[in-house]
Amino acid sequence: MKNIYITRRETFNAAHKLWQNDWSEEKNWDVFGKCSNKNWHGHNFQLFVTVKGIPNSNTGFVMNLQTLSQILKDKVIEPLDHKNLNLDVPFLKNQMASTENIAIAIWNEIYDEIKKCGGELAKIKLVETENNYVCYYGGKEPF
Amino acid sequence: MKNIYITRRETFNAAHKLWQNDWSEEKNWDVFGKCSNKNWHGHNFQLFVTVKGIPNSNTGFVMNLQTLSQILKDKVIEPLDHKNLNLDVPFLKNQMASTENIAIAIWNEIYDEIKKCGGELAKIKLVETENNYVCYYGGKEPF
Amino acid sequence: MKNIYITRRETFNAAHKLWQNDWSEEKNWDVFGKCSNKNWHGHNFQLFVTVKGIPNSNTGFVMNLQTLSQILKDKVIEPLDHKNLNLDVPFLKNQMASTENIAIAIWNEIYDEIKKCGGELAKIKLVETENNYVCYYGGKEPF
Amino acid sequence: MKNIYITRRETFNAAHKLWQNDWSEEKNWDVFGKCSNKNWHGHNFQLFVTVKGIPNSNTGFVMNLQTLSQILKDKVIEPLDHKNLNLDVPFLKNQMASTENIAIAIWNEIYDEIKKCGGELAKIKLVETENNYVCYYGGKEPF
Amino acid sequence: MKNIYITRRETFNAAHKLWQNDWSEEKNWDVFGKCSNKNWHGHNFQLFVTVKGIPNSNTGFVMNLQTLSQILKDKVIEPLDHKNLNLDVPFLKNQMASTENIAIAIWNEIYDEIKKCGGELAKIKLVETENNYVCYYGGKEPF
Amino acid sequence: MKNIYITRRETFNAAHKLWQNDWSEEKNWDVFGKCSNKNWHGHNFQLFVTVKGIPNSNTGFVMNLQTLSQILKDKVIEPLDHKNLNLDVPFLKNQMASTENIAIAIWNEIYDEIKKCGGELAKIKLVETENNYVCYYGGKEPF
Repeated sequence: MKNIYITRRETFNAAHKLWQNDWSEEKNWDVFGKCSNKNWHGHNFQLFVTVKGIPNSNTGFVMNLQTLSQILKDKVIEPLDHKNLNLDVPFLKNQMASTENIAIAIWNEIYDEIKKCGGELAKIKLVETENNYVCYYGGKEPF
Repeated sequence: MKNIYITRRETFNAAHKLWQNDWSEEKNWDVFGKCSNKNWHGHNFQLFVTVKGIPNSNTGFVMNLQTLSQILKDKVIEPLDHKNLNLDVPFLKNQMASTENIAIAIWNEIYDEIKKCGGELAKIKLVETENNYVCYYGGKEPF
Repeated sequence: MKNIYITRRETFNAAHKLWQNDWSEEKNWDVFGKCSNKNWHGHNFQLFVTVKGIPNSNTGFVMNLQTLSQILKDKVIEPLDHKNLNLDVPFLKNQMASTENIAIAIWNEIYDEIKKCGGELAKIKLVETENNYVCYYGGKEPF
Repeated sequence: MKNIYITRRETFNAAHKLWQNDWSEEKNWDVFGKCSNKNWHGHNFQLFVTVKGIPNSNTGFVMNLQTLSQILKDKVIEPLDHKNLNLDVPFLKNQMASTENIAIAIWNEIYDEIKKCGGELAKIKLVETENNYVCYYGGKEPF
Repeated sequence: MKNIYITRRETFNAAHKLWQNDWSEEKNWDVFGKCSNKNWHGHNFQLFVTVKGIPNSNTGFVMNLQTLSQILKDKVIEPLDHKNLNLDVPFLKNQMASTENIAIAIWNEIYDEIKKCGGELAKIKLVETENNYVCYYGGKEPF
Repeated sequence: MKNIYITRRETFNAAHKLWQNDWSEEKNWDVFGKCSNKNWHGHNFQLFVTVKGIPNSNTGFVMNLQTLSQILKDKVIEPLDHKNLNLDVPFLKNQMASTENIAIAIWNEIYDEIKKCGGELAKIKLVETENNYVCYYGGKEPF
């Protein structure tokens, strides 16, 4: 049997800023530009989560998308949607709220949950704007 | 000669919250739900600005889109992009930062500027998420 | 005070066919082509519902989008989503399941509900594919 | 009976430039900027054509979209697709190839054809890029 | 010389349902939810087909997209578009009409045809809704 | 530490044609069809550039997107935007202006520049129309 990859999209709207406490205001501006605005800015984030596996012979499913969607709602959307990513999210505390770091943190939050439900998390794509996104494969070779 | 309508899109990413100071925290939650999160949330806003007029016989233009784009950058994108709509924007002070109010305020900021350049502002469409947007026609009959 | 227009998007996935019982199979094919396939076909429909009004001074809202979304879910999405538009929907019975007719029927289902909540339904846009959609304004002048 | 509005999208990819023969190269650059590049540039155009009418009681159609699509293919897509809008298109000769002028010319090409098939052309929307488009209503009040 | 990957998109609109004959109606509902509606539902499917190869020195093409598009039209779009995926498609008979199974079946239908025309099928992406899609690489390592 | 992949989108609008000088007009038509129109056609191209790396502990960035965007503007958008890809671009001279060849040429233009700024170019996706695009990984295994 051969692996196939299913992807589920969820969305969340959040505020954040890019600010390094160890730096001066001037250096923060030099590196992060308008993303360092102290009063925050925000985005409509799109999260695409990909799970790999072999379709079940009874359902034709790698994994039930209702199950996957529920995991994402409980573990990611509930804690991030309409929140401040620097202040409100326990699993993002004490790190830069860059798209890269958010994507890695989301991977770590959901990997085991998906495993428990019989799926193998393969990829996270986090879209911040129409002009930039990141992809994370748990450090494995990408696809 | 007959009127035609040109539209320019610009984008800005901003934080805001919906919060009525005259109300209790509980009432704010009842009315605005998660949009009342005190630490803010944010969006990728898309602004579509429509100008009406008759194409110039030399240029074929109702209005030069470079001129229109520059007005929008100076009057709207510079003050709103990567900003907090409740705190950072003089022309949004002392009002609810609802999509409706932001759209009306943008209309008022740019109407005269466009007029000076020979255009007639006809419509503003402000898209907050893929699921909601507002349109404003200066109180005139819509189209 | 001046009117502004808010729009909410909802989606539903449904099956239908275009078939006129009074006609022969041949004539149905001539008029409706592959849309007349007797075993049905289907679409991801997008519904955009526009309500007009004056922003409330306390909320900045024409109408609370949570309220509008709930009306749409109860009156439209619940009865249409993952359904057969020819067979499963009481308010579409005994008519051609054309995009035009579906849009008009949706207008009639929600007009009074929105009125009760203080909104004035102004427009329905129903997108069937990326290449076709219909707009309905209750027979009033369009915008 | 009440009017409803159907829209069909077609696409074409074409080259053009904005160049006023009566002007110097310098003035062309001042007004049209990079759009005046003498060796042309190009776009993926999207054309949305809206027809108004009352749904036929037998078909539920304002107008058969197969008929509308065929008119658009014959009258617009065939002459414009993979063409140079300044050089190759008889109905665009001797005018600036601005989006405004192209939209008006398309209206004039198809109005009568659609009339012959029982439809009333109501609106043309011509999208040049994700950041700009024009709408034309035949000089009537817009919607 | 180095491999490059070209992708062609085609679309089809179809009805289907998720229903396991070996199960009770209750169990079908528990597993498939509203996707098990016995009267079907449907989708606008988008199919992205990726072929790998080295650009031909005369054409600059990995494979002529007109050829690839014709294969897809003959082998996939013609049999699936405006059809019922459970009832009307010989190559989908006797299996669950899940997105996963449809994607694998499409791969098997076109792999040899593309090979005959000098291309190497590398990936199929089948988009069912804006919120879910599957990717299949013939069981090889994904990308 | 584990690799993550960031992507930046830029756009350019350009004219081109597919024409093989060594061939007759007839053969050019047979192979390239309407893409061989001697007076050119054009597209809105979208370029997605992916860089891999490990997030910096101070910034949370694989690479500053402002830096990446500036490289792309200087090396790709400035020479290609509103240009003729067959005539105006030094680094595309003497080759077919196929999407494949353009993508490979862009890779070669930016690989070293990105390297100098500490990034590792991993993928280029060049979208010509909504129905076709190419991906290039420098000849390495794709993802």
